[in-house]
Amino acid sequence: LKRLAAVRAVEQVQSGMVLGLGTGSTAAFAVAEIGALLANGKLSGIVGVPTSKRTFEQAMSLGIPLSTLDDHPVIDLAIDGADEVDPDLNLVKGRGGALLREKMVEAASGKFVVVVDETKLVTGLGGSGLAMPVEVVQFCWKYNQVRLQGLFNEEGCEAKLRLNEDGKPYVTDNSNYIVDLYFKTPIKDALGAGKEIAALEGVVEHGLFLNMASSVIIAGSDGVSVKTK
Amino acid sequence: LKRLAAVRAVEQVQSGMVLGLGTGSTAAFAVAEIGALLANGKLSGIVGVPTSKRTFEQAMSLGIPLSTLDDHPVIDLAIDGADEVDPDLNLVKGRGGALLREKMVEAASGKFVVVVDETKLVTGLGGSGLAMPVEVVQFCWKYNQVRLQGLFNEEGCEAKLRLNEDGKPYVTDNSNYIVDLYFKTPIKDALGAGKEIAALEGVVEHGLFLNMASSVIIAGSDGVSVKTK
Repeated sequence: LKRLAAVRAVEQVQSGMVLGLGTGSTAAFAVAEIGALLANGKLSGIVGVPTSKRTFEQAMSLGIPLSTLDDHPVIDLAIDGADEVDPDLNLVKGRGGALLREKMVEAASGKFVVVVDETKLVTGLGGSGLAMPVEVVQFCWKYNQVRLQGLFNEEGCEAKLRLNEDGKPYVTDNSNYIVDLYFKTPIKDALGAGKEIAALEGVVEHGLFLNMASSVIIAGSDGVSVKTK
Repeated sequence: LKRLAAVRAVEQVQSGMVLGLGTGSTAAFAVAEIGALLANGKLSGIVGVPTSKRTFEQAMSLGIPLSTLDDHPVIDLAIDGADEVDPDLNLVKGRGGALLREKMVEAASGKFVVVVDETKLVTGLGGSGLAMPVEVVQFCWKYNQVRLQGLFNEEGCEAKLRLNEDGKPYVTDNSNYIVDLYFKTPIKDALGAGKEIAALEGVVEHGLFLNMASSVIIAGSDGVSVKTK
């Protein structure tokens, strides 16, 4: 069903478009579909801008012509999954660790289509109880961990350094660490929270994707539905 | 004379304080003076939080007890130089490349005393025509270079990647690049500019230090003077 929702998103792709290619299992379905449409000639002249090394490799293997924001600073359409979607189509993203590249590419996109299954719908961001990632520089990460947790006393927040299986800190593609925030209750003011997080020195990016999605395609038990802003 | 101004700044240091130790030739005078006062017993119980590896080494060699923001998140007093000072005591800093660590430490300081010679005084930030540094992630730095330059069409801005003598990009202590902004006319709205720069995905920090300095000690041809907010 997630594949069907991803195919539905790819229906918006037209020949000649510059496309932002998301990261994760749902985005991988969309990339596969774009590759198939290029192979069978139903699409042509596509340029893909991948949001991670993983997506770069998948798209390469499918023969999708690829570029970067340096060479294609304006993107027509981006397709990606999300970790949480609230009723205003605000998102939590980046549990996969690619939040900075995803946000750079998707903020540069004229349209940003999100594909999720219905388990990702929340009444408020942070409401899943799962990680909301914040990318921080390695220098004094503990100081920022404490400051991040302190921003959300009302919500009951636990801030944890993300570790690899070997117990060493997870390092992003940009040589930074990730502090994951876990909330007991949803974030009350996501827009305010985003600004406060971003204002901390040493914070590189955060997983709140606010006012970015143009539409969300939802794979539910009743089939595929679309929400548009 | 710069040394005299630095000594004047150190007069504000009291025993038992946690001190932010700046980076650069002027800050080095202050660090040397603190070391001397500790050595002759006029100060005691000082903890220093250095803003760079260079300052760390100087302070170590002088026997100043050192710590980090992780262990001392609240700093009583920071002393540092600056590249530009405007009439409202807003600053440009970071030509030495340590802007992120300097900003983290100095933003955590109850008092922040800046020491400069009078050639650093400008009517508006960017007015010296010298670099205003922006630390950016390596990923798609060119995209951000173009976006940064585009923010300042009115001021006539040239954005250049900072290079080492060998022609390779300069890499910060945090594994990032620096894009230096050169302005033809001073920045019209420094506060707005700071927000716009910080809002760009992939920007880690910028060299505008706004509403941070508590006082500026100026070494001029007529002697040392002090400006306080």
